Amino acid sequence: MDTVTVELGQRSYPIHIGPGLLGRRGLLEPHLRGRQVLIVTDTNVAPLYLDVARAMLPDFEVAEVVLPEGERHKTLETVNRIYDVLLQRRFDRRCTLVALGGGVVGDMTGFAAATYQRGVDFIQIPTTLLAQVDSSVGGKTGVNHPLGKNMIGAFHQPRAVIADTDTLNTLDDRQLSAGLAEVIKYGLIRDPDFFAWQEEHIQALLNRDPEALTHAIRRSCEDKAEIVAEDERETGVRALLNLGHTFGHAIETATGYSQWLHGEAVGTGMLIAADLSTRLGWLAREDYHRIETLIIEAGLPTRAPADLDPDTFFTLMARDKKVQDGVIRLILLKAIGQAVISDDYDPALLRETLEAHHALPAPPTGLGL
Amino acid sequence: MDTVTVELGQRSYPIHIGPGLLGRRGLLEPHLRGRQVLIVTDTNVAPLYLDVARAMLPDFEVAEVVLPEGERHKTLETVNRIYDVLLQRRFDRRCTLVALGGGVVGDMTGFAAATYQRGVDFIQIPTTLLAQVDSSVGGKTGVNHPLGKNMIGAFHQPRAVIADTDTLNTLDDRQLSAGLAEVIKYGLIRDPDFFAWQEEHIQALLNRDPEALTHAIRRSCEDKAEIVAEDERETGVRALLNLGHTFGHAIETATGYSQWLHGEAVGTGMLIAADLSTRLGWLAREDYHRIETLIIEAGLPTRAPADLDPDTFFTLMARDKKVQDGVIRLILLKAIGQAVISDDYDPALLRETLEAHHALPAPPTGLGL
Repeated sequence: MDTVTVELGQRSYPIHIGPGLLGRRGLLEPHLRGRQVLIVTDTNVAPLYLDVARAMLPDFEVAEVVLPEGERHKTLETVNRIYDVLLQRRFDRRCTLVALGGGVVGDMTGFAAATYQRGVDFIQIPTTLLAQVDSSVGGKTGVNHPLGKNMIGAFHQPRAVIADTDTLNTLDDRQLSAGLAEVIKYGLIRDPDFFAWQEEHIQALLNRDPEALTHAIRRSCEDKAEIVAEDERETGVRALLNLGHTFGHAIETATGYSQWLHGEAVGTGMLIAADLSTRLGWLAREDYHRIETLIIEAGLPTRAPADLDPDTFFTLMARDKKVQDGVIRLILLKAIGQAVISDDYDPALLRETLEAHHALPAPPTGLGL
Repeated sequence: MDTVTVELGQRSYPIHIGPGLLGRRGLLEPHLRGRQVLIVTDTNVAPLYLDVARAMLPDFEVAEVVLPEGERHKTLETVNRIYDVLLQRRFDRRCTLVALGGGVVGDMTGFAAATYQRGVDFIQIPTTLLAQVDSSVGGKTGVNHPLGKNMIGAFHQPRAVIADTDTLNTLDDRQLSAGLAEVIKYGLIRDPDFFAWQEEHIQALLNRDPEALTHAIRRSCEDKAEIVAEDERETGVRALLNLGHTFGHAIETATGYSQWLHGEAVGTGMLIAADLSTRLGWLAREDYHRIETLIIEAGLPTRAPADLDPDTFFTLMARDKKVQDGVIRLILLKAIGQAVISDDYDPALLRETLEAHHALPAPPTGLGL
């Protein structure tokens, strides 16, 4: 078992990574303050892992809630079902919530923990690659609103993260690729050696080679832990973790959070960000092609959905949390391994880039259609 | 204008107290980071003060939302209306929410600010005595759940509090009395001189003598600011501020948050806590009678509602946030000015006390009804 620590003073916590962790006695107990534990999971994960998760806590008062699966259920209404169980069971301030599942379960469970009785503990047991390398680490919690993704939320750090690599064996290929998008992200924003390693090991990762996956998860968590320790509340460098996300969130909003996986949208979003960076003359064309190649090899889409026209795309982007006083700040690339946050770009080039990544060729302008 | 500071390091903030503050230019600007301001108020307060509040910010992008009045609307659904306006207007992370109204408006606005885009700024402009002396100070925000009061929430400190004593002139007598309950609370838990001052000045306070009210608000805010500075997250001494609240919340829950004002329920709750303290032999009988006299003179009720039988009362209390591992911890009195938190009391005496404060005489036991 590998352990990466997120250094946040009194709120520091371990990320345990390795095979066979789910079900192991003694992993959760050190992080529980009271006797009451609520396991939150979804309809996909419950049949696979709920029993084994319960078995980790034979001496506790364990309740469970099984939420409907999918990003479109990441709403206040669904979180309310968690509150209902907590209150029906009279769970007190010393209870702990355990998020067992992917990023959606983790985000909602974390938000419920952040807001139940003004804050109780929670533990993340991520079961998807995306959650293991990204969403379970760092304390961002929240839900979507019909007008924008992750618009309601709180910063609330978990007490521990348990990433069992065996759970990735039950992941379908699309989910695996979606997780790889966030792995690629760390290489792009700060870790060029890791990016080069991924170029060499992309087939091993797709083949679920345990050693390759463990390395990718550990290195991703190390990158993320360093960033979060430096800037917990995203007042500076942490914003770089949003590479591709402003584009990606627009795609997810446009498609109702139901057709695209988050990681797929981020993958396409990173490629669009890289393309704009190249058009701005910041990123070498050959680096753009390395990025495009890796994203394609990872099984990720490279174009926005056909029914998302560039105008709508731009409008949806303007709702992003990184907008300040009306200007869309974007994470862009100066090189592989060097990201910057900038609002100093030509909007016409942004427009041109959005059109280039539209799934259908944009109609010629001036036709009066 | 008097100013009391809540000392919380980088998150310290001023409470400005005095007449004529609402409408004064230059009071809000120093606390605004961006150009976008959302004023949140309710149907009672909007006709009285919304225009003058807007006039304080001639050079800002000011939006407003008017919520339905009353504790029974303090729900996630109502907070969602605040999110809707923020998103429809594309308010970004640097926006500020202004709570203009009583405690309900302040709690919901604070919670919306705590959770919109994972946290934006907010300013409190309390317009009731209760909000000026208690709920606007200290950063407790939240909403009710059908199964319990303030069960969903967050700690989120305002950037400033503006308490205009002139707004108390539009308060009805019940609201004024409800606010006095929290004023009396500070005397009871930590400030015996203030309690004695209140005994002498209760008529002046009820007559809305501006000097007496200003003194009462300032002293209350000083008491609360000291407690919050010492224990922001309520891990210790801050819990004493809940004197009377475990009883009071049960009354409010039983009556659907619609018949009793929060301060009325707290007033009765404090008297029940004092009575139990006397039955335990902790509080002198003559001190109990001083408390009872002041609560009656302040115009507050002294008995629980007729339809809240002692069994239900106890069950509702057991849902309180201060319950740990099934035991109800209560704030009780050792003397006027000396409160303690304790679970070391005889439950039979609690039962006896609840029956004594039931509005109808409890039926004799053993009648087989």
